[in-house]
Amino acid sequence: MHLVTALDREPRIRSALCLFEGVATGAADGYARIAKRPAMTLLHLGPGYLNGGANLHDARRAFSPTINIIGDHATYHRHLDAPLTSDIETLVKPLSAWTDVVQTPAEAGAKAAAAYAASFGPPGGNAFLILPADSAWSEGGEIGRPAPAPALATPEAALVDEIAKAIKAAKKPAVLLNGDALSASGLSHAARLEAAGVFVLSDTFSVLQRRGTGLYAPTRLPYFGEQALETLTGVDLLVTIGTKHPVAFFAYPGKPSELTPEGAARLSLGGAEINSAVAVEMLAEALGAPRAPAPAAATTPDAPTGALTPEAAGFALARCMPEGAIIADDSVTAGLSILFPTMNAAPHDWLFHTGGAIGQGMPMAVGAAVAAPDRKTIALCGDGAAMYTVQALWTMAREKLDITVVIFANRIYRILMIELARTGAGNPGPTAQSMLSLGDPALDWVKMAQAMGVDAARCETAEDFDRTLARMMAQKGPTLIEAVV
Amino acid sequence: MHLVTALDREPRIRSALCLFEGVATGAADGYARIAKRPAMTLLHLGPGYLNGGANLHDARRAFSPTINIIGDHATYHRHLDAPLTSDIETLVKPLSAWTDVVQTPAEAGAKAAAAYAASFGPPGGNAFLILPADSAWSEGGEIGRPAPAPALATPEAALVDEIAKAIKAAKKPAVLLNGDALSASGLSHAARLEAAGVFVLSDTFSVLQRRGTGLYAPTRLPYFGEQALETLTGVDLLVTIGTKHPVAFFAYPGKPSELTPEGAARLSLGGAEINSAVAVEMLAEALGAPRAPAPAAATTPDAPTGALTPEAAGFALARCMPEGAIIADDSVTAGLSILFPTMNAAPHDWLFHTGGAIGQGMPMAVGAAVAAPDRKTIALCGDGAAMYTVQALWTMAREKLDITVVIFANRIYRILMIELARTGAGNPGPTAQSMLSLGDPALDWVKMAQAMGVDAARCETAEDFDRTLARMMAQKGPTLIEAVV
Repeated sequence: MHLVTALDREPRIRSALCLFEGVATGAADGYARIAKRPAMTLLHLGPGYLNGGANLHDARRAFSPTINIIGDHATYHRHLDAPLTSDIETLVKPLSAWTDVVQTPAEAGAKAAAAYAASFGPPGGNAFLILPADSAWSEGGEIGRPAPAPALATPEAALVDEIAKAIKAAKKPAVLLNGDALSASGLSHAARLEAAGVFVLSDTFSVLQRRGTGLYAPTRLPYFGEQALETLTGVDLLVTIGTKHPVAFFAYPGKPSELTPEGAARLSLGGAEINSAVAVEMLAEALGAPRAPAPAAATTPDAPTGALTPEAAGFALARCMPEGAIIADDSVTAGLSILFPTMNAAPHDWLFHTGGAIGQGMPMAVGAAVAAPDRKTIALCGDGAAMYTVQALWTMAREKLDITVVIFANRIYRILMIELARTGAGNPGPTAQSMLSLGDPALDWVKMAQAMGVDAARCETAEDFDRTLARMMAQKGPTLIEAVV
Repeated sequence: MHLVTALDREPRIRSALCLFEGVATGAADGYARIAKRPAMTLLHLGPGYLNGGANLHDARRAFSPTINIIGDHATYHRHLDAPLTSDIETLVKPLSAWTDVVQTPAEAGAKAAAAYAASFGPPGGNAFLILPADSAWSEGGEIGRPAPAPALATPEAALVDEIAKAIKAAKKPAVLLNGDALSASGLSHAARLEAAGVFVLSDTFSVLQRRGTGLYAPTRLPYFGEQALETLTGVDLLVTIGTKHPVAFFAYPGKPSELTPEGAARLSLGGAEINSAVAVEMLAEALGAPRAPAPAAATTPDAPTGALTPEAAGFALARCMPEGAIIADDSVTAGLSILFPTMNAAPHDWLFHTGGAIGQGMPMAVGAAVAAPDRKTIALCGDGAAMYTVQALWTMAREKLDITVVIFANRIYRILMIELARTGAGNPGPTAQSMLSLGDPALDWVKMAQAMGVDAARCETAEDFDRTLARMMAQKGPTLIEAVV
């Protein structure tokens, strides 16, 4: 409460109300990916943290710096086990890069500054500062001295040389990238690696990838393990830069869990703790890699026609989305078909879903739009995923954020139908099918958006989607399309 | 996935899809309170648990038995730290009465049976069974032998006699009740305690209280500590039965945390682990308490008129709600004004909000309505609270549950305005006020309900509310009233 009233005395803090903590934490992730610095969430005791936990799981997997202030009971009140008491330190542990508890008002400032610095890691992570009520309302506070944010590490030159040597000696060397290596600068050097004969891949779920006209596009490691292994066929050396060696998203009966080809050598220039853009450049230099060839010229695809499929939506996006757009991707099964059509769209940033906890798309868009108010943010959401944090629509309206939400309404948990088949769980009967179906009743996303103050339209054909999207791209402020696919 | 497809082979299991885990866990709480046995939730890894965590916090505070199956990665896949991996055992610990991990298919059945038994406690609690994927898909499962559910304990006769003696010796003895003591049978004996000169109180947040015409109503301990202490003025002995000695919900500067009057003796017949109805009866016998006087006759209040206030809504409820109704109360600040008008309504069960994690009302109503399909369930929700688990509306529609939801739309987090004043956080400026306001844009609850398949109406006068509620009480199936207060 004291933190809330203090907002009026510190106008440099931009505050935004979210109607569910999962919106706030997902927004903190989106903000961090775009702004490259942490946002702060204010959560209320254990339940407030729990409500925000799933999107903090995703943030952790994106190595996003976040600061989470968790208000707790007064220090002298905790042992009484009042209804809202819980063991917050234990609850946060699995998702925490750093946790501390303010014991006295005097240390609150210094610990807040420490939380800021700690959130950067490297690698970045969730910092939790537990703030008992009496530390907020007692006298004796001192302003903390700003703590410097540590920078990402740079690989040792000797390691770079060793890996360059191994690449030269390999028959089919490959590198797997994530982090800053997928920025415009990182990609320009990644293209040189390819020109030097290296097979260049990016993680299935990248934190942020710059894509579009004029930008080099690494091969994306496929989601399913057997497809990933097929893609890596013949690779005898796999070097990771800004990531780790690949593993399957889930285990499946009789299918491999580790995705580095058997017998291939594994080397690493560093994980998420390094500046992978610099690492790629150093490696390109050590290999004496040539300048990359000029990428293909821009082309605008034809307007899609006929049935509205995710692919048709992808072509419409490629036609309409403005330069500098930010894509917050929680589209689950629809997403695959959108990546290819948008490869040569106007340059844009794609935020992938790093942690697998669905319900991240709209909250992440909120944070991205706050971080970059002059850019258009587009949230791509499965209908099942979007329902997890549907409250985000209200914050978009309240804050007049320049976001267009596309809901792919297939009215089913399609991914679960796929997983069901892959785990060998048998043919689903009517009950199991109904457990995976979002129909009966069908969600009305237009009314849902309007209920929270967001303009919305339903599209059932490719033509209608293309036309509606073009209109929404041309205006500012939040909008939603229910794409019935 | 195997558990889902197995539902078609075991039709005795009633399954219901929820579009957010918090709906499932809140429903499990509501189910347990009405059915007196656990429901099972099926959650997906750490994030699925986190999404359901806040309502499991509330369930824990209600001592509701719940069984939560948390699907995890295959045992051999966990160490690879795939994106959805997290330390589930640590995450669940603070909310767990019992946790186990299935290590082989052969032990899955026995551990499921153990989870059932463990959920009963006593006292009841959340049982977590972590189920790695390979235990689901591998051969070798064995059907577990049903484990008996332990019963609640009965106090020792000697303790009852000792407490009866202390009560007789006290100047102003009081008892504080929760649990089964607030059932029809428990209350009939609690009335005898009052007839024997004991001041009889119930906890501020009872698990389930039978209320209405013909039922004895203990004095409810007020929410705010200073009011609670005022209520207890002069009490020199406070005996707890099915609960513990009272503490303030929150600490406030300069206000007491413990609410037993200073100098008063504290005794306990037992906490949530005892059958408090039996305990109250034993105490009444030991005191030689007379039969209680016949309670007041039923009266029907006049139809409320004029402005729609929570109190007016309370009188309308008292007029319209059918015998046997179940009230799932998440109405926060509106709730206080509803309790008095409904005191002599047709007999009904009131489920209070035990843990303070808002967003419990609609999910709890879902579970209660599944447990008691022949009774009318009414969810009373603050608008801020209802947004937390708004997805519950869809499950009400899908399952055609006989629930009427009343949303008290004051368009503000009123409770936070009160807490703000009480913590001495100062006069809120425009920014702080906006952080507590749900206006701009106002939520349209009618559209929200319709978006998820629930019939809804907005009421702005007492007359309109009374008429609309009467109509909804007369029909079956889910409905919603936005009560603009």
